Amino acid sequence: MSVDAARRDLARLLGAGSVLPGDTAVYLSDETEGRGLRGRADAVALPETPDQAAAVVRWCNDHDVPVVPRGGGTGFAAGAVPLDGGVVLALERLDRVRSFDPLLWRACVEAGMRTAAVRTLAREGGLVFPPDPGAAEQSQIGGNVATNAGGPHAFKYGATGAWVTGIEAVVMPGEVVRVGGAVRKDVAGYDLRALLVGSEGTLGVITAVWLRLLPAPEAFLPVVAFYEGVVSGCSAIERVLGNGITAAALEFLDAGTLAAAGPSFPGGVPAGAGFLVLAEADGSLAEAQRLRAELEAVLAEDALGVVAPAGAAEVEALWRWRDGVSIAVSAQRGGKVSEDIVVPLDRLAEAVAETVAIGERHELPACSWGHAGDGNLHATFLVDPHDDEALGRAEAAAGELFALAAGLGGSISGEHGLGWVKRGRLGLQWSPEAVELHARIKQVFDPRNLLNPGKKTAG
Amino acid sequence: MSVDAARRDLARLLGAGSVLPGDTAVYLSDETEGRGLRGRADAVALPETPDQAAAVVRWCNDHDVPVVPRGGGTGFAAGAVPLDGGVVLALERLDRVRSFDPLLWRACVEAGMRTAAVRTLAREGGLVFPPDPGAAEQSQIGGNVATNAGGPHAFKYGATGAWVTGIEAVVMPGEVVRVGGAVRKDVAGYDLRALLVGSEGTLGVITAVWLRLLPAPEAFLPVVAFYEGVVSGCSAIERVLGNGITAAALEFLDAGTLAAAGPSFPGGVPAGAGFLVLAEADGSLAEAQRLRAELEAVLAEDALGVVAPAGAAEVEALWRWRDGVSIAVSAQRGGKVSEDIVVPLDRLAEAVAETVAIGERHELPACSWGHAGDGNLHATFLVDPHDDEALGRAEAAAGELFALAAGLGGSISGEHGLGWVKRGRLGLQWSPEAVELHARIKQVFDPRNLLNPGKKTAG
Repeated sequence: MSVDAARRDLARLLGAGSVLPGDTAVYLSDETEGRGLRGRADAVALPETPDQAAAVVRWCNDHDVPVVPRGGGTGFAAGAVPLDGGVVLALERLDRVRSFDPLLWRACVEAGMRTAAVRTLAREGGLVFPPDPGAAEQSQIGGNVATNAGGPHAFKYGATGAWVTGIEAVVMPGEVVRVGGAVRKDVAGYDLRALLVGSEGTLGVITAVWLRLLPAPEAFLPVVAFYEGVVSGCSAIERVLGNGITAAALEFLDAGTLAAAGPSFPGGVPAGAGFLVLAEADGSLAEAQRLRAELEAVLAEDALGVVAPAGAAEVEALWRWRDGVSIAVSAQRGGKVSEDIVVPLDRLAEAVAETVAIGERHELPACSWGHAGDGNLHATFLVDPHDDEALGRAEAAAGELFALAAGLGGSISGEHGLGWVKRGRLGLQWSPEAVELHARIKQVFDPRNLLNPGKKTAG
Repeated sequence: MSVDAARRDLARLLGAGSVLPGDTAVYLSDETEGRGLRGRADAVALPETPDQAAAVVRWCNDHDVPVVPRGGGTGFAAGAVPLDGGVVLALERLDRVRSFDPLLWRACVEAGMRTAAVRTLAREGGLVFPPDPGAAEQSQIGGNVATNAGGPHAFKYGATGAWVTGIEAVVMPGEVVRVGGAVRKDVAGYDLRALLVGSEGTLGVITAVWLRLLPAPEAFLPVVAFYEGVVSGCSAIERVLGNGITAAALEFLDAGTLAAAGPSFPGGVPAGAGFLVLAEADGSLAEAQRLRAELEAVLAEDALGVVAPAGAAEVEALWRWRDGVSIAVSAQRGGKVSEDIVVPLDRLAEAVAETVAIGERHELPACSWGHAGDGNLHATFLVDPHDDEALGRAEAAAGELFALAAGLGGSISGEHGLGWVKRGRLGLQWSPEAVELHARIKQVFDPRNLLNPGKKTAG
């Protein structure tokens, strides 16, 4: 099958305006571009309906052509990058709100809807869609579900999958199936819904999701505290849990991250600060105020300073700053290799310190930040993206990070998934028998290995 | 393989004191006994360690003998009943607390620990394990996970699976595997953890679970309201959501259930009441009081009466009464056929009314109660368990219930699972392609069909 024939066939299925050349740049990379990853595709298909998406999958199956599902392209694992040709199946035109029942706390939206638009929709109904991964303006809800995206508020509210009550997906050889729906409980079958959540486009192509929503909390009241270093900072984090405070978010920045992002911190960073903790209280105004006071008291011990932003504008500025941390870190050397390991909370200090030590061994500046309460670090090595030798060292350092996480009883991925960059690494944390089950589940859904091949491979 | 040889082999593996005769009555039935179901086994094995459990599974695999995992035997779907011989693998001696970190909100416990003991353990650490299915004194946490058990507070807190961060299980041909652990996030592999949750012993035998816990709310403040009938009662339920009140539980009883359980209601039932709503507010005392006041205001419209129990003793008495509803209904005729369908919340009134109508068509008294906020009904037909003809009519009526739930976009099971009583019915709510995936996942985990065979079958 020539590339021209592929585009001609797909254009016949979808209409000429729905098929783009395979070299359309915007579909060939994600956030791993800064570590040198860029793909190539034979064509880009832009279906407007689930049936069109199924037709593309069926055509790929019939012609033995790989299909790479793609949302907003904000991934950090190259999961949506077409690394070895095939058809990119971009979901962006499948972006309708199929139903929205604010009085019943639920919505059904198509996969290509931007995450920020989903959040806005909920807010307009007096509700909240709690998951808040970064890049919500660009990412799509289908991609969020396919990676089980997290974010700061996953600490209280869980990751994206916790809010998905149903999934419509195209499965091989090109059929639209639906599991779950506008229901809040369902234990009839094996949890195929949960299996598709986080499957990174390797088991099926998600075309729509039924979401559970929540009444919007009246107030969000963050507190920021600064510490000398990792030990005092991580002790403060454990004190929040130990005192039974149900924070909505519990974030951290280590010294290296603070060096990069501190200069833009609203209000300035106290001298000598080598660790930042950001906690947020939410709920009714009275409840959030009560929780914030508890947080302030508990975080104050050993702190170099505690800041509680006063008004809505200050709160927004704080979170906008927090959203920019990753970019501030990247700006140090132009690029970074950033992984998303998870450890049991009592091993967080060790993981933060060891990230820096691994960097030192590989002669790379290193830092970490992230979702402290969930034990989820963005452990990062700074690199010049044009320096292939340094990139190579960073990849080796990342390998040590994965071994560290697994060795501490954690996971090699808390948010990004395996994608391509962590393919074949699952054996670090799973036994051979579990890895074998993983591989055989893939065979059940995709016997010809055409759905996002090479991604999320276990062994 | 004779029954004697089986018992001899198993005794060699586990010790003679850990193998009981296959006719030991307590292992041969569950809550479906009242509809005529009682099994037979070749032997009952009582392993004390995961390795012993694995040895039993391996022996069964090697000798082509079915293995029926069993927790507390409180199921309503005959999922743990050995209907056609084989070895009952009872987990009750695997009941250790492996670790408990109250300051980190987590525990690791073995599968045979009683659910009530798990809840007590959490409480002693100032925490709560939120899932609260019925029969917690008898049920075991492993069985709760294997069925993804629900309960009243699943409305706010989700079902059992939402609190499980890791699972240790024996998989075929007799290997102990572990997925997840003491981590709050993990998107590295396909979600095998979620696949084992609710798999009813057909994919693996759960031997231990890592649980996430929460700081215990300071107060639980329920409100009960009475209505004339289904329409006004279901309107009140929808008003709770429509007003954005995050109740912890939102339960209902219809007229038939109220006739059975009303006489023991603490404080009495107002004349003319044909529907009861029980809502609960929780949180800090101030927050729970605020929410309860909102609930009282919203529920009062069209109500025949609203009751808010005053002290801890009254609250406890109310929930004890609620726990007894199922028994009060059973007592009407000595037995019942009770199913656990789910519908979208806006179809609840229809499902409640239709349950009675289906009963009338089959000349059976019918009623329903349950988890209104989750659209989860215990739709029930009353029968004399010695009247085979009536039992036959009740089974036919249950079939209509399942079709009703599927037709309304719901599920044939919100809590009990398919077990044996709903085997083969998944096609009512899933397309043939999804049912086929379900069957092939079973083949991946259990190629010889020895793990709880005949249960949770899809097609």
